[in-house]
Amino acid sequence: MEKNVKMKDIKELGEQLGELQRVCREKKIPVMIAFEGYGAAGKGLQIGNLIQALDPRGFKVYAVKNETEEEWMHPFMWRFWTKIPEKGRIAIFDTSWYRRVMIERFEGKTPEKELEKDFESIRAFEKQLTDDGMVIIKLFLKIDRKEQKKRFEKLLASKDTAWRVSKGDLKRNHDFKEYKAINEEMLRKTDADYAPWTVINATKKKEAKVAVYQAVIQAMKEAVARKELEEKGSLEKKTEMKRETAESILAKTDLSKSMPKEVYEERLKELQKKMEHLHGELYRRRIPVVLGFEGWDAGGKGGAIKRLTSHMDPRGYVVNPTASPSDTEKAHHYLWRFWRAMPKAGHIAIFDRTWYGRVMVERIEGFCTEKEWKRAYGEINAMEQDLVNAGAIVLKFWMQIDKDEQARRFKARQENPKKQWKITDEDWRNREKWDQYEVAVEEMLEKTSMPHAPWIVVEGNDKYYARIKVLECVTEAIEKRLKEERK
Amino acid sequence: MEKNVKMKDIKELGEQLGELQRVCREKKIPVMIAFEGYGAAGKGLQIGNLIQALDPRGFKVYAVKNETEEEWMHPFMWRFWTKIPEKGRIAIFDTSWYRRVMIERFEGKTPEKELEKDFESIRAFEKQLTDDGMVIIKLFLKIDRKEQKKRFEKLLASKDTAWRVSKGDLKRNHDFKEYKAINEEMLRKTDADYAPWTVINATKKKEAKVAVYQAVIQAMKEAVARKELEEKGSLEKKTEMKRETAESILAKTDLSKSMPKEVYEERLKELQKKMEHLHGELYRRRIPVVLGFEGWDAGGKGGAIKRLTSHMDPRGYVVNPTASPSDTEKAHHYLWRFWRAMPKAGHIAIFDRTWYGRVMVERIEGFCTEKEWKRAYGEINAMEQDLVNAGAIVLKFWMQIDKDEQARRFKARQENPKKQWKITDEDWRNREKWDQYEVAVEEMLEKTSMPHAPWIVVEGNDKYYARIKVLECVTEAIEKRLKEERK
Repeated sequence: MEKNVKMKDIKELGEQLGELQRVCREKKIPVMIAFEGYGAAGKGLQIGNLIQALDPRGFKVYAVKNETEEEWMHPFMWRFWTKIPEKGRIAIFDTSWYRRVMIERFEGKTPEKELEKDFESIRAFEKQLTDDGMVIIKLFLKIDRKEQKKRFEKLLASKDTAWRVSKGDLKRNHDFKEYKAINEEMLRKTDADYAPWTVINATKKKEAKVAVYQAVIQAMKEAVARKELEEKGSLEKKTEMKRETAESILAKTDLSKSMPKEVYEERLKELQKKMEHLHGELYRRRIPVVLGFEGWDAGGKGGAIKRLTSHMDPRGYVVNPTASPSDTEKAHHYLWRFWRAMPKAGHIAIFDRTWYGRVMVERIEGFCTEKEWKRAYGEINAMEQDLVNAGAIVLKFWMQIDKDEQARRFKARQENPKKQWKITDEDWRNREKWDQYEVAVEEMLEKTSMPHAPWIVVEGNDKYYARIKVLECVTEAIEKRLKEERK
Repeated sequence: MEKNVKMKDIKELGEQLGELQRVCREKKIPVMIAFEGYGAAGKGLQIGNLIQALDPRGFKVYAVKNETEEEWMHPFMWRFWTKIPEKGRIAIFDTSWYRRVMIERFEGKTPEKELEKDFESIRAFEKQLTDDGMVIIKLFLKIDRKEQKKRFEKLLASKDTAWRVSKGDLKRNHDFKEYKAINEEMLRKTDADYAPWTVINATKKKEAKVAVYQAVIQAMKEAVARKELEEKGSLEKKTEMKRETAESILAKTDLSKSMPKEVYEERLKELQKKMEHLHGELYRRRIPVVLGFEGWDAGGKGGAIKRLTSHMDPRGYVVNPTASPSDTEKAHHYLWRFWRAMPKAGHIAIFDRTWYGRVMVERIEGFCTEKEWKRAYGEINAMEQDLVNAGAIVLKFWMQIDKDEQARRFKARQENPKKQWKITDEDWRNREKWDQYEVAVEEMLEKTSMPHAPWIVVEGNDKYYARIKVLECVTEAIEKRLKEERK
């Protein structure tokens, strides 16, 4: 037994941990614990220690290895976004989203010129999750070069354990100073208030165990205290909607644009054929495409998507209809369900309604707080930036019609027995909130239009014109990208 | 234009299809459409034709290729179980679960001695899904050898299309007769009332298109009619619980069995160490393990699981707590959520409460019909058989205590402020239904205990005895398997 560590103390800490796990489950606080550190510092051992104090029904351990092909074909944070725990549960990572800026950087797999972007993605990931109530605990287990060498030699001495020491491990021990510099830069650049690093001296195993317990207990305690404060504190006021004086983008839209049927039919044929061809090119060059569709009810989203996809290879695209979140989806960060549906390289994901629901229906109906939807602009921009960094083409369409046109379409649907199902009471209720939506849409267009992920406002009063515009914009964006790649 | 096919007819059929898709969505009928057939018969083309008539927001197309590593490490039906559509949606498969008994058999990848098991798995899969309301449409596109050869040659003539013809395609054309015999055997063995094959002559593309439309329309129409009949028909009566006269397994359990604390502590240490070692062996030999825990409330499931796992490598096992199904889970077959959690080769999945909820709580609370829970015994046996066929060790534990012991534990929990949370009103309500549960449990033990997936009744009044018994049974089962493998 190492000095200063008493069995009794460890037992007490373990009990505290078990109790905190229970409280976090009850209060629906999700927790992520990342173990990083030098090879042979004892990550596996410390994870084993930690979970002994926990109820096995409430946590999951992820051993993060090299990316699978599926993972490699997505943005690098995708595999972590899809693994975030639901509210009240704990996810433990044996190495984590930091691999990319540690081991993989050291091995030259992470291009230096993308490094700053990667740090930015990591910071955005942690910021967004903690803003949503996630507790992120990051533990870095430290030993020095000599100690590491000693441990490797001990492992190598027995054939039962020798396989645990890789060539990479030995290389990192050999170039310890260089690897250490990489780690220290990483620690410096990602040590944030909302997700701080705890560096733990792992030379003495029992002392390290106590330090791990303490760090986790501390973070969970603080989270519980914050949550209690929140519960006591007054609920945030519902948002007041007020019309901004800024110049209106929607008002400037020329809704008189139209297209004769004969021209439409000819152009449609041409563009669908072109789309079919471009889809094959995208697949061969492994370029992913994300297309979001938003717009007024009866604005023509469905019809535009149908024309867009009708000649595409069905094995290479998916249309994701976005309805109200399921209970599982509600138990996660609001972006989680969209991350799960993001396309792999070479595929197209089309969203019929999107993550922008956060700053429209959720804002207006009060399904989230003002603080939450205001934060969402930045979160959404960060997500789209991650997609673009991973090589994706990202386009967002707003199908614009005026209020009279909507009324005409609602009525036409009600009078047509085959289309009555398309119109519900909710549609009429939403219509009453037209002005509120207009304010929200203007703000959204203004705050989330970026050169690499632009909003395209589609003049939708004439369906023919609108469908052709969507097809044109998509094909042009793809052609532009293919041209750039050829350079 | 081929003779006998009029543009107008196709348009009408397309409209019917779109309308049926809408009705199926409304009536929450899920549909799976499998396309199989000879190479170059035009599966891709016909899928393209089919979806042109459908709303893209309501279907998903899966291109089934060779298994990924992840898939290969699971039972072969796993990748299809995890892809079944939720109620009201359509999944289209470009080649399907039949690969294994067609192409892969022809290529010698499917061992002939496992063939009958594979057919059995396929039949059970289709039977279970259709019993649950799924519509399964299986289309086999047929061309003859000469036509196939002509099409391959045409494809090979252009470098844009030559890549679409594989060596395997040419081989199957060369040995057409042999491959045809395999296909015909497959069609014969899997043509069932509940999931019939439609063989379509695909020599003429337009005629084939009409045949595909007609087959899908026919099947969907029938499904809608069945559903309407059901809705009109009287609801099935709630189950009457009556005590069977058969000899009681539970009554025979000797609950006086116990173990002194000192013996327990020593055995626990030994067995946990053994378990740690065996876990490593399982991992190296890629043997998956499925452990299900059921039992009375306060029967000691949690405690037993905790002792079982405490020395296992956390990266190699997962404990899945089973709560009431979420809404997404409810929208699928009841076994779907368990299939998703099945372990890959070398991993251990522990379930705290299991799929047996179907024949216990769901039966007693009337969450499913009598027909449904009676059917479940066979469905569950089939699922466990699939797991065993894929090499898994499957054990199921029933933690048995008597009613007095439960009362003592409930009271002890209520009096201990740290354990009060463990006891809820629902526990007391369930206790009132003790006799009903006893009937259900007896029937379950009798109908689902199989040599390869046995039920183990654990005498649970003494916790020490119970925990050791669980550890002993698990380690013995693993040792037995390892010994068999070594032979």
